[in-house]
Amino acid sequence: MNLSELPTPALVLDVERVRRNAERMQTRVSRMGAHLRPHIKTHKCVEVARLQTSAQSPSLTVSTLAEARWFAARGFTDLTYAVPIEPGKFEAAIELARECERLALLTDDAGIPAELNEAARVENVKLDLFLKVDCGYHRCGVEPETKEAFEIPRRIADASHLRFAGILTHAGHSYHSRSLEELRVFARHERDVMVELAAALRATSIPVPVVSIGSTPTISAVEHLEGVDEARPGNYIFFDAFQATLGSCRFEDCALTVLTSVVHRDSTRRKVVIDAGAIALSKDRGAVDIGDPDCGYGRVLDLEGRDLDLRVGSLSQEHGIVETLDGALFDRLKVGTRLRVLANHSCLTAAQHPHYNVLDAGLIVDRWLIQRGW
Amino acid sequence: MNLSELPTPALVLDVERVRRNAERMQTRVSRMGAHLRPHIKTHKCVEVARLQTSAQSPSLTVSTLAEARWFAARGFTDLTYAVPIEPGKFEAAIELARECERLALLTDDAGIPAELNEAARVENVKLDLFLKVDCGYHRCGVEPETKEAFEIPRRIADASHLRFAGILTHAGHSYHSRSLEELRVFARHERDVMVELAAALRATSIPVPVVSIGSTPTISAVEHLEGVDEARPGNYIFFDAFQATLGSCRFEDCALTVLTSVVHRDSTRRKVVIDAGAIALSKDRGAVDIGDPDCGYGRVLDLEGRDLDLRVGSLSQEHGIVETLDGALFDRLKVGTRLRVLANHSCLTAAQHPHYNVLDAGLIVDRWLIQRGW
Repeated sequence: MNLSELPTPALVLDVERVRRNAERMQTRVSRMGAHLRPHIKTHKCVEVARLQTSAQSPSLTVSTLAEARWFAARGFTDLTYAVPIEPGKFEAAIELARECERLALLTDDAGIPAELNEAARVENVKLDLFLKVDCGYHRCGVEPETKEAFEIPRRIADASHLRFAGILTHAGHSYHSRSLEELRVFARHERDVMVELAAALRATSIPVPVVSIGSTPTISAVEHLEGVDEARPGNYIFFDAFQATLGSCRFEDCALTVLTSVVHRDSTRRKVVIDAGAIALSKDRGAVDIGDPDCGYGRVLDLEGRDLDLRVGSLSQEHGIVETLDGALFDRLKVGTRLRVLANHSCLTAAQHPHYNVLDAGLIVDRWLIQRGW
Repeated sequence: MNLSELPTPALVLDVERVRRNAERMQTRVSRMGAHLRPHIKTHKCVEVARLQTSAQSPSLTVSTLAEARWFAARGFTDLTYAVPIEPGKFEAAIELARECERLALLTDDAGIPAELNEAARVENVKLDLFLKVDCGYHRCGVEPETKEAFEIPRRIADASHLRFAGILTHAGHSYHSRSLEELRVFARHERDVMVELAAALRATSIPVPVVSIGSTPTISAVEHLEGVDEARPGNYIFFDAFQATLGSCRFEDCALTVLTSVVHRDSTRRKVVIDAGAIALSKDRGAVDIGDPDCGYGRVLDLEGRDLDLRVGSLSQEHGIVETLDGALFDRLKVGTRLRVLANHSCLTAAQHPHYNVLDAGLIVDRWLIQRGW
């Protein structure tokens, strides 16, 4: 089957680009002396995880316990669940920890170590728990110079049924960079904050087994990773229009598109409607906040992946609207014409679909399941 | 199981409100002398469709062929696929039409009747085809005073393997109303445009079996439906924060919420992070374009459904950020505290989840599957 035959809308994964992105990041992180623990929230797919780890490492980062269960049952048994744990998930996490070689959880709350320790004691398991650190994103984590940044590791280290796994951060604010130089500043800061905190903790006799950092922009931009043990980028496996605008990649590295068909054309307004709407693309507004107000909800490409310089301007549930000021181009777009949309944010777009259609040398050669839900 | 025990994030359907919304719309449309053909894109769920139709009518509207297949296999065999048909879907639609009592398609393209007729002739089936009319939304449809509005029905009526099903519109622009009076103007216009076009077509000897209109706001606001045969509202079954802001319903009619847990609290910035992020809620910006710039990505309620006057201010994949200026309220929000989020747009939020957790008198009494994909 080829792209003219696949029913639309459909998620298309360019496997050659995925392989290239995987190898490049693997090489980059290895050369810098760190361990790659890719974040699979971007793809939620076992076959992609195997490409990311060269089928040689069981280490992944996950964003839900459902992902953890799915991957653990398929051989990935060294997992970090990278959202702060809360009491409603203790039971499920403990159950899962029994199935894994290692399931690390994380916290930034001073009350959680005692509560989690008690749950682990009752169930007679020992759990790995990271301190989540805020290196400037201000979403989750403790700030490194506060007393909690020292108290929480101490409480974990002293708890009978917990192991202090180390310190972990995510420089999500790097997504607001407006230049590669600014991105490098965020990247250095993410690393340095963590290396300094690890040193300060060690100076108070708290062993820090792992210093873990990660975001696709910062790992793509950072010059070295001295003092860092592992990196957890995720988006790099597909990249997307946002990352290309940010400078983490080139547009030709982007591996994920949505195949779509024109269902309506309006010659008065020179617009077409495609069958990729809010569900097929997600409503992520992309690079609008980093200085690309015209990014729309995705860039429109032809079947060969050439950029047509069109944007998906608005979305309803199953309709995407594409304005086409170029009259010659508009004339070529008939009802039934097929296009591809390079999504703004590949993580959110992938999560909208049941599976990837795997494109290799112009043919759809496989279908890979996406694990959704919680 | 109750709302304190259900793993989060989880989609919660208040079945009493769904029943009430279903009955109210059924009564309203019947009293106005029209047939209700609910649009199931809002819920994608067989059990909800049975409540909507009192399990007595097989007539539904769908937005994807996957929905059509799912519902047809479960007894709903009188379907309208309400997105313009394009050649890439002819084969699947014809296959499905054989399984249905009636599967109506729609077009607004002058070339489609001949192409579809040829496909139907080869397969020896006869297909029902509507003319999609633009009553002012300008998304799809032909404008009623153009020559296409007459030519396309004539081509359908003259085709050997097509039946002209009638005329169909959707006043999606009613979602931009800023007052109930403005909404009524849109509602009257949607109806009147269609009644007049039907009369004009009949005057040229084209029988118009069905005049079909529908959107939740216009059907909720319109004073009468004389000359209209069927109504296709969808969102009314759940309503949402957007519809309540628009005036189609009251907040206490909204039947769909996302149960969530606090995973992080930041006392410096007085914000909490919840485990309902962009995937659990969708990134629909809600009523921001109809004059509620502070609507955020959802309203935060307590477990009993009381509005806490908080909004989900920003979203990442599995994190929602809620700012809490009220210090006393912030003090009550601990890691593990459970909340409910009334989503901006219930259709998009529902489509993010694998199933509904059915809440009845404070207990989760059932789990109803959501049919996703294409």
